[in-house]
Amino acid sequence: MHFTVLTLFPDLIREASRCSILGRAAGEGLIGVDAIDIRDYAFNKHKKVDDYPYGGGAGMLMQAEPVYLAYEAALSRIRERNENAAKARVVYMNPQGKTLDQGMAESFSKEEELIILCGHYEGIDERVLEEIVTDHVSVGDYVLTGGELPALILIDAVARLVPGVLHNDSSAQDESFQGHLLEYPQYSRPEVWHGKKVPEVLLTGHHENVEKWRHEQSVKRTLAMRPDLYEKFLREE
Amino acid sequence: MHFTVLTLFPDLIREASRCSILGRAAGEGLIGVDAIDIRDYAFNKHKKVDDYPYGGGAGMLMQAEPVYLAYEAALSRIRERNENAAKARVVYMNPQGKTLDQGMAESFSKEEELIILCGHYEGIDERVLEEIVTDHVSVGDYVLTGGELPALILIDAVARLVPGVLHNDSSAQDESFQGHLLEYPQYSRPEVWHGKKVPEVLLTGHHENVEKWRHEQSVKRTLAMRPDLYEKFLREE
Repeated sequence: MHFTVLTLFPDLIREASRCSILGRAAGEGLIGVDAIDIRDYAFNKHKKVDDYPYGGGAGMLMQAEPVYLAYEAALSRIRERNENAAKARVVYMNPQGKTLDQGMAESFSKEEELIILCGHYEGIDERVLEEIVTDHVSVGDYVLTGGELPALILIDAVARLVPGVLHNDSSAQDESFQGHLLEYPQYSRPEVWHGKKVPEVLLTGHHENVEKWRHEQSVKRTLAMRPDLYEKFLREE
Repeated sequence: MHFTVLTLFPDLIREASRCSILGRAAGEGLIGVDAIDIRDYAFNKHKKVDDYPYGGGAGMLMQAEPVYLAYEAALSRIRERNENAAKARVVYMNPQGKTLDQGMAESFSKEEELIILCGHYEGIDERVLEEIVTDHVSVGDYVLTGGELPALILIDAVARLVPGVLHNDSSAQDESFQGHLLEYPQYSRPEVWHGKKVPEVLLTGHHENVEKWRHEQSVKRTLAMRPDLYEKFLREE
C-alpha cells in the first residue's frame, strides 16, 4: 500500500515514516510513503503558495493552483507503478471532516493507493478541495497548526492493519475498541515493583480465570473512564 | 512552556518539533521540547525495555523500571530550570484516556511544564502508570503503533495556544469549534480558477453581508457534516 502526502513540510513526513514500525514496514516493502512538496509547484519565484482570503479575515489561505499541480504530480507518480491510479482516494485532513475511527481506518486499509492532502495557514481555497478531494477526515475535535501530524496519524492507523506490518498478527486484533471495551491493565517482570505485586490471578497460569479477570477489568475501566463506549458495549452484547 | 517527552523514538519527537510553527516557536524561546530516550534507562546491556506480560497474551510490554528512571531524569532536568517542577503533570497518551478536545488543550496550555509519556508494544506495566501518571489522554478512537504521534498532536494543539506562538493573535480565536460551528469555505486569488468563481458576496467589501454569508455557510456545513456539533450549537445559542 502506498501513501502519497501533499504537504508544505515533506521532511516531517519523511522523517516520521522512517521511524519505528512504519520505517520497518517501508524497509520490507509492505508500505511506501511519498511526500510531495506543494511549494515546488508555486508559480512565482518566491515559492509563495498562500494569499489573503477574499472577504477579509485573519491569516492566509493556501491557493488552489499549487495544490492542484502537486496533486497532478502525485497522480502521475502513482500511475507509473499502478494503472488503477485514476481511482485513488484523496483525503483532506481537516477539523471539518468525518472523525477518524477504527472502522474508517479499516476501510482505508483496503486501498492500494491513498493521497493525503495537508493544509496549513487558515486552510485551502475551497475550489481545489471541491475538485480533487474524495474524503474529508478529522483526527479529533481540536485545532492544530497543520495537517501533517493528522496525516501521519492516519498513515499509522491504516498501515498497522496492512497484513504483515505488525509481525505478531494477533496484535492487530487483541486490542482497544474490540467489542467497545478498553484494555485491561497489564504487568510484566518483576513480580514486585516499588512494593506493588502483580495481581495473583495472573501468576496462576489458569487461562480461564485470567480471561475472566481481564474481561472484568476491561468492563470496570470502560465504565469508569468512557461511559459512552460502555453504553455501546451493553447495546451490542 | 516546556514539554518533556519520555519515548523510545526521541528522533521523531526532535525532528517534528523542529518543523513549522513549533520550530519557529522553539527558536523564539516561547516553547521548549525535550525528548528523553527511555532506552537510556534500560538496566541490561542489550538496552531491552520490554518483557512478556504476566498471564500471557500477544506482544510485549514496556517494563516499569526504565520508564520510572526516565521520569526521574525528566524531573531533575525540569527542576534545574523551574522550582515548581514537583507539580508537573504527567500525561500518558493511550486510547484508554480521556479524549482530547479544544477545552482540554486550553487547560494544558496554562501549565509551565508538561511531561508526556509515550507507550509502545502492547502498553506499559500498570504499576508505573499508577505511580507517576496524572492524566490519561487519548487523541481519538483508533489504534496506533505508539504514543509519539499522539504526543506531538498534544504538543501542537497546546503550543499554538501559548501567547505569541501564532504571530497573528486573532488566528487562535477565529477558528473551528468556536461556538461549536465548523469553518465556512474560504477563497483566495485568482477570482476565477478552473472556471469556478469566488462567491459574489466576498467581493463586495460589505463586511456585514460577508459575516452573514459565512455564518450561514458554517451552520449549513455543520448540520451536513457534524450533526452532533450542530445539536450542541442549538442548545447553547
